[in-house]
This record gives sequence, C-alpha cells and structure tokens, in this order.
Amino acid sequence: MSEHIYKKIELVGSSKIGLEDAIQNAVAKAGETIRNLRWFEVVETRGQIENGQIAYWQVTLKVGFTIEDHPSS
Amino acid sequence: MSEHIYKKIELVGSSKIGLEDAIQNAVAKAGETIRNLRWFEVVETRGQIENGQIAYWQVTLKVGFTIEDHPSS
Amino acid sequence: MSEHIYKKIELVGSSKIGLEDAIQNAVAKAGETIRNLRWFEVVETRGQIENGQIAYWQVTLKVGFTIEDHPSS
Amino acid sequence: MSEHIYKKIELVGSSKIGLEDAIQNAVAKAGETIRNLRWFEVVETRGQIENGQIAYWQVTLKVGFTIEDHPSS
Amino acid sequence: MSEHIYKKIELVGSSKIGLEDAIQNAVAKAGETIRNLRWFEVVETRGQIENGQIAYWQVTLKVGFTIEDHPSS
Amino acid sequence: MSEHIYKKIELVGSSKIGLEDAIQNAVAKAGETIRNLRWFEVVETRGQIENGQIAYWQVTLKVGFTIEDHPSS
Amino acid sequence: MSEHIYKKIELVGSSKIGLEDAIQNAVAKAGETIRNLRWFEVVETRGQIENGQIAYWQVTLKVGFTIEDHPSS
Amino acid sequence: MSEHIYKKIELVGSSKIGLEDAIQNAVAKAGETIRNLRWFEVVETRGQIENGQIAYWQVTLKVGFTIEDHPSS
Amino acid sequence: MSEHIYKKIELVGSSKIGLEDAIQNAVAKAGETIRNLRWFEVVETRGQIENGQIAYWQVTLKVGFTIEDHPSS
Amino acid sequence: MSEHIYKKIELVGSSKIGLEDAIQNAVAKAGETIRNLRWFEVVETRGQIENGQIAYWQVTLKVGFTIEDHPSS
Amino acid sequence: MSEHIYKKIELVGSSKIGLEDAIQNAVAKAGETIRNLRWFEVVETRGQIENGQIAYWQVTLKVGFTIEDHPSS
Amino acid sequence: MSEHIYKKIELVGSSKIGLEDAIQNAVAKAGETIRNLRWFEVVETRGQIENGQIAYWQVTLKVGFTIEDHPSS
Repeated sequence: MSEHIYKKIELVGSSKIGLEDAIQNAVAKAGETIRNLRWFEVVETRGQIENGQIAYWQVTLKVGFTIEDHPSS
Repeated sequence: MSEHIYKKIELVGSSKIGLEDAIQNAVAKAGETIRNLRWFEVVETRGQIENGQIAYWQVTLKVGFTIEDHPSS
Repeated sequence: MSEHIYKKIELVGSSKIGLEDAIQNAVAKAGETIRNLRWFEVVETRGQIENGQIAYWQVTLKVGFTIEDHPSS
Repeated sequence: MSEHIYKKIELVGSSKIGLEDAIQNAVAKAGETIRNLRWFEVVETRGQIENGQIAYWQVTLKVGFTIEDHPSS
Repeated sequence: MSEHIYKKIELVGSSKIGLEDAIQNAVAKAGETIRNLRWFEVVETRGQIENGQIAYWQVTLKVGFTIEDHPSS
Repeated sequence: MSEHIYKKIELVGSSKIGLEDAIQNAVAKAGETIRNLRWFEVVETRGQIENGQIAYWQVTLKVGFTIEDHPSS
Repeated sequence: MSEHIYKKIELVGSSKIGLEDAIQNAVAKAGETIRNLRWFEVVETRGQIENGQIAYWQVTLKVGFTIEDHPSS
Repeated sequence: MSEHIYKKIELVGSSKIGLEDAIQNAVAKAGETIRNLRWFEVVETRGQIENGQIAYWQVTLKVGFTIEDHPSS
Repeated sequence: MSEHIYKKIELVGSSKIGLEDAIQNAVAKAGETIRNLRWFEVVETRGQIENGQIAYWQVTLKVGFTIEDHPSS
Repeated sequence: MSEHIYKKIELVGSSKIGLEDAIQNAVAKAGETIRNLRWFEVVETRGQIENGQIAYWQVTLKVGFTIEDHPSS
Repeated sequence: MSEHIYKKIELVGSSKIGLEDAIQNAVAKAGETIRNLRWFEVVETRGQIENGQIAYWQVTLKVGFTIEDHPSS
Repeated sequence: MSEHIYKKIELVGSSKIGLEDAIQNAVAKAGETIRNLRWFEVVETRGQIENGQIAYWQVTLKVGFTIEDHPSS
C-alpha cells in the first residue's frame, strides 16, 4: 500500500442461493467496469420472502477501489 | 406494492449447521402462523461455543409481513 | 402517568400522499385492534420510486400502548 | 440450549422505586401471559420528573422467550 | 424482483417549501440522468435558518437504482 | 463563513398540525432570545396519540447559532 | 401536554453511593435553577475506580424542561 | 493525569442481586490481577430470566487501567 | 474528583489552519465566559472547500465543566 | 449459568472459503490458548478483492469466555 | 445557498505525513475531475503500522459537491 | 495478506502535543511488547482542559496485530 486515494461505492447484491453468492454477484458486477477493486464491507443483510420461503438474499455492501484517473466515475 | 401496512417482529433463529440455516429456521417458524411474510433484516449474528467448537449459530432478525386484520397479533 | 407497563410494536405505514399520511395510516391500522395507543417514534423513512416519481412514502415507526391484560398480544 | 426459535418483544416498565424495580415490573407483566421467558436486554433508561423529583423510573427493554407454538402471539 | 444488482448514491436535496419537496427535488434531479430509480432512504434532515426563519429544508437521502451496464457511473 | 464559533442547543418542538410546524415552532421560540440562528438538525421524530389520533407531533432538533459574546448562554 | 417547546441540557451526575443517586444528584442540581423539569434520559454510565473499588458512579443524562421565557438559558 | 497510556478490556459481570453488584463483581475480579484500574464504562445491560424471575443481572463493561510495563497483558 | 455535577455544552469550532486549532478556538471561546472547563469530546469533524482547497476546518465538540451555581447557564 | 465473570476479546478471522469458515478459524485459534470459550458475536464482515475475485473473507468478532484465574490474560 | 442538489461521494485518503494531509490528498484528487466541491465530513480514521511505526494515515471522508448536469457522475 | 488471525486491543494514548502524537504514543507503547502490529482505528477523541487550556489530548484507538502463538496474550 502507498499514498493512493480510494473510492467506495455502495451496491446491493441479490442471489437466490445465499449470502456469499449475493456478495460475489455484486463484486463481479462492479468488476465489469471498475479496475483495481480492493475490498468490500458488508453494510446490511436482508432478504425477500415469497410463499414462506426465502426467494432472494440481499446484501448491501461498500466496495473500495484505487482511483487512477476519474475519481467521480 | 400498494398502501399496505406492515408489521415487523423480532426473532432469533438458531442452527447447528450455519448462518443461513438459522435464518431459514426462524422464517419457517414464523410462517407456521403468519401469512404474507414479505422480508427479513438481519439484526445481529452470534453463536454458542462448546468444547472449542461452534455448537449453535444464532441470528437475530426482523421479519416483516402485511397486516390483514389483526395488527397487534 | 402511573406505574403502567407499555408495549411497543414496529409497523411500516405507506402512503401515496406523503410522510405524515404514512404515519397516520399505520397509527390508524394499529388502532383498529389495540386500545390505549399512547405514542409513536419514527425509526426509518423511505419510499418507492416508479417512473422517476415517488410512488409510495414508507415510514417505519414504533407504536407504544398501555398493556391492560395480554402483554404478548 | 438447542435449535429453538426465540421471539423478542419490546416493553417499557415503570416504577416509583428505581431502575431495577421498573425492569422487574415489566418482566413480571410479561410473565403473566408468556411462558418460557429467557432473557431481557435494556434498550433505554429514562424517567419522569415532577416538582423537581423523579416521579417514575422508566426502562425500555426487550424480553426474549422460546416460541413453542404460535410465533406471532 | 430478480437477481439484479443495485447501486445506491447519496444526494442532498434542498427546498424552500418543505421536507417532502426537498426529497422530490433530489429524486427528480437523479432521474434526469439515471434510468431505473427504485427507492430512496432518508439519512439526515436539516435546514438553514435566515433571519429567524427556515430558509431551506435540506434532506440527505440515498437513492437506489438497478445497474444495467455501467455500475460505477 | 469565517472563523466563527457556533453553539448548538437541543430543543423539542411540538405541534398539532404536523412535523414541519413542530420544527418551525421550536425555531421560532429559539429566535425570541437568540440572535444569529444558522441551522437546525433533526434528531428524533415522535408523537403523542390520543383516542387513536395523533394529538401532537414532536420533533427533537439541534439548533446552531453563532456565538457573539456569551458562549454558555 | 400541549404545544410547548422543551429544551434538553446534558449533565453528568456523580455519587459515591450508586447509579440512581448519581441521577438524582444531577436532577436536584438542575432543579435549583430551572423550573418545570419534565424528564431525563440516561446517555452514558461510567465510574471512577480507586484502589480497586468504585469510588464514584457517574451518569451522563439529558434533562428536558418546558421553556417559558428564555430558551437559551 | 499525565502522558500515560491506558488499556481497556471488556468484561461481563453477573449477579443475583442487581446491576451495581454485577458491575462491582466484574471490577473486583479484574482487580485480582490488574493494578491501577482507573475507570469503567457500561456497554450493555441484560439479564437471565428463570421461572418468570430475574435469576442473573448481567452487565457488559469496559475497564480502563494504566499500562505500566506489558501493554498486551 | 468528588461528587460534582458537570454540564456539557456542544460547540463547533472552525479554523483556517487545521483540526487542533479548530478545537482550541472553541475551547478558548468557551473559556471566556465559563470557569472550570474540565474536558472536551470530539463529536464530528468536517470542513468547507472553496476553489478545491480546504478553506475551513470545523470540529463539533462537547465541552464539560463543573457546575458551581447556575446549572442551566 | 452462575455468578461467573466473563471476558470478551476481539479477533479478526480470515478465510479463502467463506464467512463461516473465517469465524471458525478465529474461534479455533482462540481455543488453542483459552479454555472455556462460551460465545461469539459478529462485529463486522469484510473481504479482500484480488483480480476481481474475493480472495479473503474477513470477519471481526468478539469471543467471550469464563474467567477462571487471570482476567487480563 | 439556494435550491441546489448536492451529491456526496466517499473517498479514502492516505498520507505518510498525518491526518490533515490524508484529508487534503483526497480532496485534491476529487478536485481533479469534479467542479464545485463544497464540503467534506470525516467518517473514519485509521492507519497502517509497519515495523512498529505508523506508515500511512488513512481517513475515510465524504465529499459533497453541487450537481450541475450529471447527478450520477 | 493470507489466512491469518488478528487480535485487536483497545488503548488510550495521551499527549501534551496533539492528536497524532497521542496516537503515536499508544502505538509505540503497544510495540514494546507486541510484535506484528498491523493497523489502528480511532474510536474516540477527547482531551483534558486545565486553566482554560488543553492540557492533554486523548485518543482511544484499537490496534490490530497478527496472532502468532498466544491469542489471548
């Protein structure tokens, strides 16, 4: 680690499978357009219930990445 | 979604297997007597340790459901 | 006020009109089955957006009432 | 402890005597209609002042109990 | 709702009229450049006072939307 | 804004009409004796219920003002 | 209760005897110069230890009172 | 007070008698092996209920002490 | 320390120089009219940006002092 | 449970596999040198991302255990 | 101030020198691509330790700016 | 970083000079007996005031380090 500046964005990942899959879905989506993802922090864990079953697991997380050239993007 | 009123109750689910199973146990128990469960929110995650092993995973969650006729029940 | 015991329940009121109407809808619903409502406390304020417009205002609130005979009801 | 499911309800106990008495009053009231009370957690401590004296001690607490058959009761 | 990924951004809306108008101003502004706005959550409510009168109502809110193609935008 | 020092006091405004009116009542009262009020921050929103109706809306807020000569007043 | 405006001040009471006595000391001190004290809320509970014994119990509390004429006093 | 460094540890004291006794039990236990205890801060107050009675009062507290020679002990 | 009662007031200090200077400015201002200042606690750290530079550092802090004769002053 | 005193320590467990494994790793490590581990509480959930993949899951937890003879160890 | 809408982004600045420098680095980086920066709020203060020395000071802050034309950028 | 387990301890550093010096004093003291210090997190910032001047800056921080062989030490 050096004198880098990082930006954190807030995402909500969802999954029919479970909590870790919901997190991985969000990280994978972020990785499609952001290089240099460095870490995530779980902010909130929820889920949707349909017919008495958990239909979707939803995890709100912050994802941090190194800013290279466009900080507000 | 429409102009419904929802009620949230607080439950603690426990499981020998893991965190998601503890959540599912609590949701299943709630579903035995409440129709129209809609969502859950994780409030706290804990566990009991016995002989150096995690014996029970415990998750405190709030479960929300549509009120149909008796709001305080 | 005397040596009463109070119970607080958590509700989510929704309204197409606004925040105060969402609160009043929740209080009115609670009043249909609970006597002696005494106060409310706002816990969270949210809303649903559809087509760029706020479709529903949603307020999570706790409602307190005097327990007369069945505390867990 | 086993794979039980617990429910937590939120009560406000009041007392002219003191904080512990306010907690005990709330627990006693809950015990009139709920079997299997297991624990309490203090959420907030307040009091009413009349003529410069503390007239009522008020403690908001959550009370947890084992669900046996009707989770939303 | 399906396995979508959502992004939440934080805005501060202001209004001379009131709290709901401040929220609506922020949502309207976000809607100018973001498709698929889904919900908002109020984070903080403040206001500016000038000459003893409330000159501006200010509401900080998070706005969530479905990510379609550029998550960090 | 310059190198001023500000003081914040905590007030609870109440109103039969609504939330914004409760805030305005508190600000107006503060303005009777304090010059240079600058901003307010909402801390808590509650209300009293009488006969199933909201009788009083109560908003706890902090009000900030520039200290000119007596910081503790 | 009517459309009053209340002010809350923050005090720390201390006592060699215990927690309730520390609260009562703070309320009594406030009552020497403020009329119309209405309620208190405990914010924090601490204590000083000397020679392995609790020498002073310290309770930080907010005390609310009706504003009659000088809101910032 | 001088340029000392302090360490804080987190303990849970329990008592059949009450809250202050639970705190004193924890402080006394800490004092058996730590010199220079200086203060405590209450973090959480709970209790166990057996047969509808409070069987144990439990207080989680942080205890601070001056580090003399081994900071991690 | 003895059985004193303390009052805490909330101030915002600002400075063109830095965080510690903003704190010192607030403490110095409080000291102009309050005797027996004892401690401060930082509540929030912010700053104003002008032309891409930090123009003012702003620190919200609580300042505690021993009450001698007028608790609400 | 009796009148025991417990100590809580804060650990961060990490794992390449997932959240529960990270918790179990931390509990197992604590069990190497502490007898009588009783419970854990999750404080924070994070993770490291490398090449767009979650490389390490990290869970900060508090672990409670019965103090037998050396409270500060 | 007028009826503007502001956006807040979350950044982490780091510095070998100290806390204020870490904040200034983050603000400077944001200023490279965002016009109209208005304020910052410190969210968290941390640092990396190497060989027993603080190698990097890290400050997480939110930076607010006036939205002119593209709210999600 | 690998599958290490870390422990976090809570310290309070004090300094006559300033906030960063108080943090450095605490880290230096911890380094006398703990190898492998990795990071710190600021929990609280306070100070003692004497004769209207800041006599001691006090920073409560958590310090994290890699556990090598004795986790509870």
